[in-house]
Amino acid sequence: MKEFDLISKYFAPLASNPAALDLLDDVALLTPPKNKQLVLTSDIIAQDIHYLSDTTPADIAHKLCAVNLSDLAAKGARPFGAMLNFAPLQNCGEAWIADFAQEFGNMATAYDFSLLGGDSVAMTRQAHFALTLIGTVDVGQMPLRRAAQRGDDVYVSGQIGCGALGLRDAKACQQTPWAAHYRRPIPRLELGCQLQPLLNASADVSDGLVADLTHICHASACGMDIQLNDIPFADSDSPNLLNLQLTGGDDYELIFTAAQNCRTAIRQVSERVKTPVTLIGSVIEGDGVRLLDGNNKRHKLDNIAQGWQHF
Amino acid sequence: MKEFDLISKYFAPLASNPAALDLLDDVALLTPPKNKQLVLTSDIIAQDIHYLSDTTPADIAHKLCAVNLSDLAAKGARPFGAMLNFAPLQNCGEAWIADFAQEFGNMATAYDFSLLGGDSVAMTRQAHFALTLIGTVDVGQMPLRRAAQRGDDVYVSGQIGCGALGLRDAKACQQTPWAAHYRRPIPRLELGCQLQPLLNASADVSDGLVADLTHICHASACGMDIQLNDIPFADSDSPNLLNLQLTGGDDYELIFTAAQNCRTAIRQVSERVKTPVTLIGSVIEGDGVRLLDGNNKRHKLDNIAQGWQHF
Repeated sequence: MKEFDLISKYFAPLASNPAALDLLDDVALLTPPKNKQLVLTSDIIAQDIHYLSDTTPADIAHKLCAVNLSDLAAKGARPFGAMLNFAPLQNCGEAWIADFAQEFGNMATAYDFSLLGGDSVAMTRQAHFALTLIGTVDVGQMPLRRAAQRGDDVYVSGQIGCGALGLRDAKACQQTPWAAHYRRPIPRLELGCQLQPLLNASADVSDGLVADLTHICHASACGMDIQLNDIPFADSDSPNLLNLQLTGGDDYELIFTAAQNCRTAIRQVSERVKTPVTLIGSVIEGDGVRLLDGNNKRHKLDNIAQGWQHF
Repeated sequence: MKEFDLISKYFAPLASNPAALDLLDDVALLTPPKNKQLVLTSDIIAQDIHYLSDTTPADIAHKLCAVNLSDLAAKGARPFGAMLNFAPLQNCGEAWIADFAQEFGNMATAYDFSLLGGDSVAMTRQAHFALTLIGTVDVGQMPLRRAAQRGDDVYVSGQIGCGALGLRDAKACQQTPWAAHYRRPIPRLELGCQLQPLLNASADVSDGLVADLTHICHASACGMDIQLNDIPFADSDSPNLLNLQLTGGDDYELIFTAAQNCRTAIRQVSERVKTPVTLIGSVIEGDGVRLLDGNNKRHKLDNIAQGWQHF
């Protein structure tokens, strides 16, 4: 199949925004909305690294969109458009491409963004897909990773550990809800957008809870005391799975810090968007995350506690 | 090497613009310049597809930047910032990464853009690198691929065939100027920016001269008569290499159409930026490119005339 035919048949219909120039050009032309800043994020998902080789094209498309939308969610940014780098294995077949494009379109509709452009290539040995997603925020409103303040509360949305337990189950070919979450994570976009005015620092949990909290600490030059018993674990009944859930990635929940006087407002947002958020600790002087058990003793993590390491 | 260490050591120094947030966040935060539109382009270069496996990391970084800058050049857009997806082979080694980052920095300095963010992953079987490059144009000034007008002149910059001849020589391990051009193409950025107000349609030659002219024809619903004898071939002495040079990719010259009354102004720009441009034909009613020889007879291309086909 020719690249231009592929684009016009499967991808041009997803490029509804005028900025996409109907995918007839090599570029997109974006007129920035007034009084907004643009938030840009880019994530790759690669075969055998971020997804198992037997993953369906629809699941790949879903996950590609979800992991990028999750980055915008953490910043309270509304999605606008996306540049797609589409690099499946050569000879994957037209049906494969059609399935990918269909789910990509579903996500674009559900989360209200347009395909703007990108590139495509048929890979010979290892497939990958990348999205550069563009969102908008009101000027000066975006919560930074480096903006945690001493005394802030530390929160997490949803449950922690679904990603790691889901990967375990998916590898064992078990169709559990966790495996479904691993394959099709749900970006916390509405939660992030509505919480935004209340937050100081914010990020999503992609590398693992402890790793991502540590990133906030390092960027903000602070420490955190985290109460182990308060963390909403996906599986809280299996002490031997605690480390896995603390350090596994792919949860795509939000972690954020906010002043203590925002507690009521945060609870109200949580109820309004029907997404649980849990207070799990506080920002302190220091350097990095201390996990405390019920007796305020430090919980030790084994050596996989650094989160996902690529290199 | 840990991903965060890699970022802070090699890539954070390239992220000078405040929009990059020192690469301490998962996103970039861009305040759009007033009275400008943003031009976005994204190109992947993949191992064994867009570059030979023995290519140096510096050459890969150069080419990655050059092919994306070439897309901006065709639109007369000034580069601003870039999202980098960095996916070398695992165990490529720190020196490899350092060399890549150094040349990426050289290009960012030479063409005045900042790294804004991106993603990195260690690939297990096939490396790739992608850039989403953002440039700016004055509102309403960007020449579109679909804006060729009947009666326009058709021009090309530089020489055609350097990419194809360079690939041939590089494969044969011959260090010719063409091989150097193949490895390190030069984006025609200054030419494109200064020509911009004069142009109707414009593109760069990445898929091959005939293919890329055809793309303009299809987007603009027009035809073109191209005088074979006027095309500035890199090797004009070898009739058997004509088809190769007409259809090979990787030239990264500009092709553009302009009203006939712009000839003097276009020649002046060409002289000012010291880059030759050659008038090679005209836009006509019709559908696609007609190559005409000295007797105004049609020159037939063999079946590789469609340009690079990925799928």
